[in-house]
Order: sequence, then structure tokens, then C-alpha cells
Amino acid sequence: MKIRRSDRLIDMTNYLMERPHTLISLTFFTKRYESAKSSISEDLAIIKRTFQYRGIGVLKTIPGAAGGAMFIPSISETEARDFIADMAHQLSAQDRLLPGGYVYLSDLLGEPQVLKRVGRLIARQYIDQQIDAVMTVATKGVPIAQSVAADLNVPFVIVRHDSKITEGSTVSVNYVSGSNNRIEKMELSKRSLPTGSNVLVVDDFMKGGGTVNGMKSMIEEFDSHLVGITVFAEAAFSGHRMVDEYTSLLKVDKVNTLEKTIEVSAGNYLQKVFGDK
Amino acid sequence: MKIRRSDRLIDMTNYLMERPHTLISLTFFTKRYESAKSSISEDLAIIKRTFQYRGIGVLKTIPGAAGGAMFIPSISETEARDFIADMAHQLSAQDRLLPGGYVYLSDLLGEPQVLKRVGRLIARQYIDQQIDAVMTVATKGVPIAQSVAADLNVPFVIVRHDSKITEGSTVSVNYVSGSNNRIEKMELSKRSLPTGSNVLVVDDFMKGGGTVNGMKSMIEEFDSHLVGITVFAEAAFSGHRMVDEYTSLLKVDKVNTLEKTIEVSAGNYLQKVFGDK
Repeated sequence: MKIRRSDRLIDMTNYLMERPHTLISLTFFTKRYESAKSSISEDLAIIKRTFQYRGIGVLKTIPGAAGGAMFIPSISETEARDFIADMAHQLSAQDRLLPGGYVYLSDLLGEPQVLKRVGRLIARQYIDQQIDAVMTVATKGVPIAQSVAADLNVPFVIVRHDSKITEGSTVSVNYVSGSNNRIEKMELSKRSLPTGSNVLVVDDFMKGGGTVNGMKSMIEEFDSHLVGITVFAEAAFSGHRMVDEYTSLLKVDKVNTLEKTIEVSAGNYLQKVFGDK
Repeated sequence: MKIRRSDRLIDMTNYLMERPHTLISLTFFTKRYESAKSSISEDLAIIKRTFQYRGIGVLKTIPGAAGGAMFIPSISETEARDFIADMAHQLSAQDRLLPGGYVYLSDLLGEPQVLKRVGRLIARQYIDQQIDAVMTVATKGVPIAQSVAADLNVPFVIVRHDSKITEGSTVSVNYVSGSNNRIEKMELSKRSLPTGSNVLVVDDFMKGGGTVNGMKSMIEEFDSHLVGITVFAEAAFSGHRMVDEYTSLLKVDKVNTLEKTIEVSAGNYLQKVFGDK
């Protein structure tokens, strides 16, 4: 098959999208399509323009012999606002209210299209920072960590409350659960995180921040560095929160378990990323 | 910006890839690009040809006024074989051997590129069947379920061993753990799976098949239908396995905990999908 520009553009778009945050060399593409570097450079310029115009993301192009292209997925401000507004609306449904002021999230956090957007929103915040791993705690945070990790194309690691025989040696830390002030324990497989990693912490829900604080201790135990903390939803919390610097996509403002009402609004994400008041 | 064919092809490729197994109407594309139906149809024909030639997947096109296009991701036989061979090689590393004959998998199942391929391989097997949900058991199966669900664009549900207060009402079943013959309990949030769903069961590792068998009972409790079972790796198991019909990507053939050797080969996936002997 003679390789035409249109075929190249389709295949390159696919190839770059499947490998975000990875530098694909110009040489790789010239070999793949048996085409001149000048043609490939033109292709990349067209893709770059369309990606930008459509809000798909940024195609970073590095010129020169060792050059190439790297796709950084993004999401437009409009899409981000619409998605968060839609989530806030869905989360405000009365029947999501669970005993203890928790909110039922498992259906949404099991929807690929929701997870893809959550992953992209969270990743967007850290595209200028070096992240080597995404960390979360089992089990509710796992789908979010996986989505963020896929978007950043870095591994994710799962801290566990229970000891599993199939993890090998682990490092454990104690932490104070913010909601009930109990001392709890969490552990992470020793070999899952290299020393000196830059770690992004994500979770589905934050009340007192105890679990997230536990993960901060865990990162220290691994001589690693915390880059940031982002949760899908934060709960209204009257006490002293154990974590002060974090981002939330959504905020559960008011919960009335007697009258079974729940009010959910946008978290501080939009303000942090787009500078809302 | 005047919308050229090249821009349309790039954006359409992105749009279709982000929404696998979803019918996108011709009308949607004509409006998005302010282009004639004939031009869009030509675009789709070009994309279809490239997707097929490159083994990216199948673009199903439905002609007529209510027509459109649907992207079914795939993976070529070569890529599938190479990936499984590579995994078998990596899993055979001596230092993966854990007490009890288990194999350390958490690093691989935390790698986005590995998970994407695992998801695509498993999904490929069921593209001609109706699947409404992917089911797994917490916590190790979750990344696999999420990857398969993303590829099929259907929700996934997580069965849990421990009762979580934040899940609401649950349905629980007892099952016999195949490895140690103990009676165990697993539960699933009542509202997470609609009655009459067609369910695909996936997990990371299968020994006696007790956990998978428990999920079969769970599906019955929800008046739903089991479509198939696929695990990432099956262990060599001398006893009577509780599940007879399943697919495995990999097979842990021999484990010698004394000499610390481990042999891993391809599971029955390649034979089932490509008809190996």
C-alpha cells in the first residue's frame, strides 16, 4: 500500500495518543512510513495545529536530528467546567447519601468515560512537573490512580490497609484516621516504589485527611518526594484537617442525613487551574 | 479556521478512539466540521482502511440517514504474541516468586502500557458478544477490570471481601476458597449491577478457581448472565479446579519454592483466539 499523507496522519494520531508523554523520534516515523523527514515534520505540524485547535492537547515537537514529538493530552476549560458541573449535579442526587455522611460514588468511578475525564483533569494540573508515580490507597482510590497514571503514562502504586501475602515484603506506617481519631496502619510493597521518586497522591474522597496524611508518611519512608495531592471529592469537615495543601474536583458542602439532602459544588480545582474567584 | 480534510481526519481519529464501541452519527460529524455527508463518508472510508491496515481496529460504518461509525479497538496477532511472550519472560524472573507459590505482579499491573494491552487482549475475545459490565474482585483484579472496561466502554463493578460502610446495601454470597478449602464471603453493592446484565468476569490470578466461582454465584444472585471468564495468569493446580471454562493469558507452569525457580508460558488465550495447537 502506497502511504499517503492522510494515512500517515491517522496512524500518527493513533500512535501518539496511545503513548502520551513519550518522545517519539522523527526517525521512527520516517522508517515506519518510508517517508522523508520533511514530510513527517509537515505532518506533525498539521497534527499539532489540530490538537491545539480542538483542545485535544499539546504536541511538543523537538527539532533537529535527535528530535521528535510528544503528545501531552489536555482538556479545554469549557469541557472541564461542564464535566465538574455535571458531576456536582449527579452527586447531589438524594439517593447517593449513605450513613455517616458518605456519598455513593462507585457507579461513577466505574464508568470509563467519567474516569478518563477525571484522570485527564487531575493530570492537567501537573503536566509541568516531574511525576514518577501516582499513589493511592486501596480500594476506592485505585480507578482514579489508574486513570491519572494512564494519562501521565507513569506507573501507579497501591497502599493497602490489609496485609496481603502476595505482595512480598512491605513497609508499613501508622496514621491517625481523621474521621474517628483511631490509629490505623497502612502498608506498601517494598519493591513497588523506587527511592527518590516524585509522587502524586490521589484518592476518591477526603474527610479529615488522615489517609492522605498516612500516604505522606509513606512517601517519606521511601525517601521520596510528594508533588501534590488531588482528591475527586472533599467532604465538608468542621474539625482541623490534617492536610492543608490539596486540590479537590468536587466539594460536598452540606449533608443532612435526617432530611436526606445533599449539596455538592465544584471543589477548588477550577480556581487553582483556571484562576476563578 | 477553514476545516481541511487533514484536520478532519486527525480530529475524527481522536474522537473515535476516545469513544470505542460507541456509534457516532454521520450528522454529528457533518455539523462538527460543517462539511457535506459525502466528504465525511469519504473521510470515514480512509480511516477505516488505515485502521485495518495498521491493526488498530475495525471501523464499523453504518450507511444511511441514521448511519454513522463505531470504532472497535483491536490488536494484531503479532502484537498479541509478542506481548504474551514478553510477559511470560518477565514473569519467569526468579525474584517474582513469593511464599505460597504466588507471583509478584503488582509492578506490571501498575504499568499503563501493560494494562492497556491486557485490556485490549481480553476485550478482543468478546467483541462479538453483548457485554454490559465487567466484574472483578478487590483489589488486585481492579486494574485489569478497568482496562477491559475502558476498551469495551462499559462499566466495571468490584466485588469485595470486606464490608465497606460507604457502599450502601450489599448482596453477599459464600464461596469455597479453592486453595485452602475455607468458606469465605464476598459482597457487591446492590445498586452497582442492574438485573439481567451480561457480565464478563476478569481477575489477576487463578489457582483453584474459588474466587471466580464465587463471582459466578454473585452473578446468579443478581439474575444476570455470565458471558465469560478471563484471568491474567493461571497457576499450576493439581487439585480439581472449580471452574472449567476460562481463558488465561499466561500460565505459571512450575514453581519450586525451595530452589526458587519459576516457569511461565503462554496460557490458553492464543489457542482460543488464534487457533494454535
